[in-house]
Amino acid sequence: MTAGRVIKCRAAVAWEAGKPLVIEEVEVAPPQKHEVRLKILFNALCHTDIYFWEAKGQNPLFPRILGHEAAGIVESVGEGVTELKPGDHVLPVFTGECKECVHCKSEESNLCELLRINTDRGTMLNDGKTRFSKNGKPIYHFVGTSTFSEYTVLHVGCVIKINPAAPLDKVCVISCGFCTGFGATVNVAKPKKGSTVAIFGLGAVGLAAAEGARVSGASRIIGVDLFPNRFEEAKKFGVTEFVNPKDHNKPVQQVIAEMTNGGVDRSVECTGSVQAMISAFECVHDGWGVAVIVGVPKKDDEFKTHPMNFLNERTLKGAFYGNYKPRTDIPAIVEKYMNKELEVDKFITHSVPLSEINKAFEYMLTGQGIRCIIRMEE
Amino acid sequence: MTAGRVIKCRAAVAWEAGKPLVIEEVEVAPPQKHEVRLKILFNALCHTDIYFWEAKGQNPLFPRILGHEAAGIVESVGEGVTELKPGDHVLPVFTGECKECVHCKSEESNLCELLRINTDRGTMLNDGKTRFSKNGKPIYHFVGTSTFSEYTVLHVGCVIKINPAAPLDKVCVISCGFCTGFGATVNVAKPKKGSTVAIFGLGAVGLAAAEGARVSGASRIIGVDLFPNRFEEAKKFGVTEFVNPKDHNKPVQQVIAEMTNGGVDRSVECTGSVQAMISAFECVHDGWGVAVIVGVPKKDDEFKTHPMNFLNERTLKGAFYGNYKPRTDIPAIVEKYMNKELEVDKFITHSVPLSEINKAFEYMLTGQGIRCIIRMEE
Ligand SMILES: NC(=O)c1ccc[n+]([C@@H]2O[C@H](COP(=O)([O-])OP(=O)(O)OC[C@H]3O[C@@H](n4cnc5c(N)ncnc54)[C@H](O)[C@@H]3O)[C@@H](O)[C@H]2O)c1
Ligand SMILES: NC(=O)c1ccc[n+]([C@@H]2O[C@H](COP(=O)([O-])OP(=O)(O)OC[C@H]3O[C@@H](n4cnc5c(N)ncnc54)[C@H](O)[C@@H]3O)[C@@H](O)[C@H]2O)c1
Ligand SMILES: [Zn+2]
Ligand SMILES: [Zn+2]
Ligand SMILES: [Zn+2]
Ligand SMILES: [Zn+2]
Repeated sequence: MTAGRVIKCRAAVAWEAGKPLVIEEVEVAPPQKHEVRLKILFNALCHTDIYFWEAKGQNPLFPRILGHEAAGIVESVGEGVTELKPGDHVLPVFTGECKECVHCKSEESNLCELLRINTDRGTMLNDGKTRFSKNGKPIYHFVGTSTFSEYTVLHVGCVIKINPAAPLDKVCVISCGFCTGFGATVNVAKPKKGSTVAIFGLGAVGLAAAEGARVSGASRIIGVDLFPNRFEEAKKFGVTEFVNPKDHNKPVQQVIAEMTNGGVDRSVECTGSVQAMISAFECVHDGWGVAVIVGVPKKDDEFKTHPMNFLNERTLKGAFYGNYKPRTDIPAIVEKYMNKELEVDKFITHSVPLSEINKAFEYMLTGQGIRCIIRMEE
Repeated sequence: MTAGRVIKCRAAVAWEAGKPLVIEEVEVAPPQKHEVRLKILFNALCHTDIYFWEAKGQNPLFPRILGHEAAGIVESVGEGVTELKPGDHVLPVFTGECKECVHCKSEESNLCELLRINTDRGTMLNDGKTRFSKNGKPIYHFVGTSTFSEYTVLHVGCVIKINPAAPLDKVCVISCGFCTGFGATVNVAKPKKGSTVAIFGLGAVGLAAAEGARVSGASRIIGVDLFPNRFEEAKKFGVTEFVNPKDHNKPVQQVIAEMTNGGVDRSVECTGSVQAMISAFECVHDGWGVAVIVGVPKKDDEFKTHPMNFLNERTLKGAFYGNYKPRTDIPAIVEKYMNKELEVDKFITHSVPLSEINKAFEYMLTGQGIRCIIRMEE
């Protein structure tokens, strides 16, 4: 029985910005009030981890345990937790749902007042302290998940209980990348049947957005990426045409407007590049075009465009976590995967044990593959 | 019978940027293919006329006959015109509806490919020439309407046939200002019953937007203007609170966020100031807020904001002519006015004869009153 006691386990610690993670033995304190301790079985690497590891244009906070796209099992629960019990299969999520605030009660928002993402906070809400330490020195949390550890502590509002029959080495991808991209298209951009859609960035998030366009019946799905090798893979996700901005000496929004007689009906930006956000907005058709921003910008980025681009009846929206309310909506997404209504396996192209986690970083930085699974048990 | 012949009549000509208009006798050529010549009876001055008269931050084009918010009667029609005949009561409109292009056929757009506003063009589409001249020298048109003349020539797609019982000295205001503001709220911002709405700019367009919020059942309507005298008048249009950015030493978006526990549900910008556009966007609540831009920006303006403001689930749209299709939708607006379902008279605070048109410019520039009617017959 580990409940109520400090657990010693392995974790990949980011000691410094941009330096390889180091596998360390760390201590994980028991969950406090409204907290849950999870045994993490699988992670997938998402670009958001990389941004905060590189800490270029983001606030640096080290040493830190990164990781947020994952799946695991409840090990123990803290005071006041009634929704979960040891043994439950769960997805941790970087943005929570308290079910009580004005956002959780709104039909439109999923930006929970209490548990929305906070990339600068490295501690738990209950006491403003960390649950991780090494030799008594605290190690910071990341977006309330820190799943690059065999055990981690989360607020109960950031834990989604799922069907225990779901394969955790696959559904881990649902906890961030899949839902973020797929929801951005089906919940926010909402392309009509037969419409044209541009997807900027063909990583897991962008490919999930393309998948959303495919199941919505889009007639053309134009993928935009700087890595030319992305297109072959992207075809499996419904992408019909490919544009590499590097192949053109005019702005990519102009290339797309020329391909589509004035612009696409919908676009979804999944890169994190502010230039791609501007292009994604400016490439939608005037009169009815809708662009959706998904990528995480840098802290000093500025979105700039001529106001006439709005006045000419273009719409720009943002989608956070695909506009899904995590605890309310995601269990049904897992069910759809179980019923083969949604494909998730094709997002997974690599797998490494925790000891080789730095390889996963390299795969993403060099644009090899889509998602790399990190197995916590070797 | 004047049909087929050049008409000599009075017009207010803008000879130079920013200089008082001069009442001149001008020649008005007969309408060509798909054109209609109108006898204008009443104008109202809209801020868009002022921008292109000042020509600060807009392309200058002089000499020019301005004017676009007006009402009149068909004098004669050109070849191929079947929808209108002499004697029909009409509203001219600065943006047309050809009924055949992809925009006219779209359910969403009103930006007719052929007849959308073109502020740089000073000639007619049919032959690229002007229908106005003085002593043989051409005088340029303005947005296809040029209603500051007793007679003017328009493309038939820019002429709305209305109920002949409608009082032209009132419904002239419907042809631009009223529809632009009212439609921006009811067709584009779409506030729900009980919601909070901010309106930037309390001229006729902004007050019509407030009126739209009032009839939509908004619980609070916050008016924002630099002229403190605007508030008393604005109360008649449902405005419940007033904010003058000059009274605060923090950005107005922050003032509004503090008044509303995080931001308004909807905002509508009706000023033409790019700073007000940014404030209108940033003052909407995260999670669900929608901002709508209506004002006409300068040609070098840049809309700037941090992309996180979008990612936090705010939406920004533009509304052109209230998203109404002019020929299809406006006759019903005139009917609603006739049935007393819509109030228009309260927008009219002044009236001058054509010979005193420069007074109307002064009233607007100094923020006196709302709309000033210009009577073409002394
Ligand atoms: N809004 C949310 O809730 C949320 C959640 C998860 C991830 N994200 C963000 O979504 C983005 C994508 O994440 P991912 O894991 O799929 O990353 P990824 O690295 O796997 O994919 C990003 C792709 O974008 C491409 N790209 C980069 N700049 C580009 C440009 N200027 N033009 C075209 N393509 C460009 C890259 O080549 C890469 O293939 C990241 O910014 C990530 O932080 C947002
Ligand atoms: N999109 C369209 O189809 C369309 C059609 C007609 C008019 N317009 C535009 O709508 C705008 C309003 O037109 P109007 O005729 O009502 O003008 P108006 O001059 O009567 O009213 C504009 C009001 O905005 C206020 N204002 C200016 N800058 C401001 C700021 N920074 N913050 C707060 N208030 C500010 C002014 O004090 C004034 O009261 C203009 O830009 C006009 O060109 C757009
Ligand atoms: Zn992620
Ligand atoms: Zn909440
Ligand atoms: Zn106008
Ligand atoms: Zn048309």
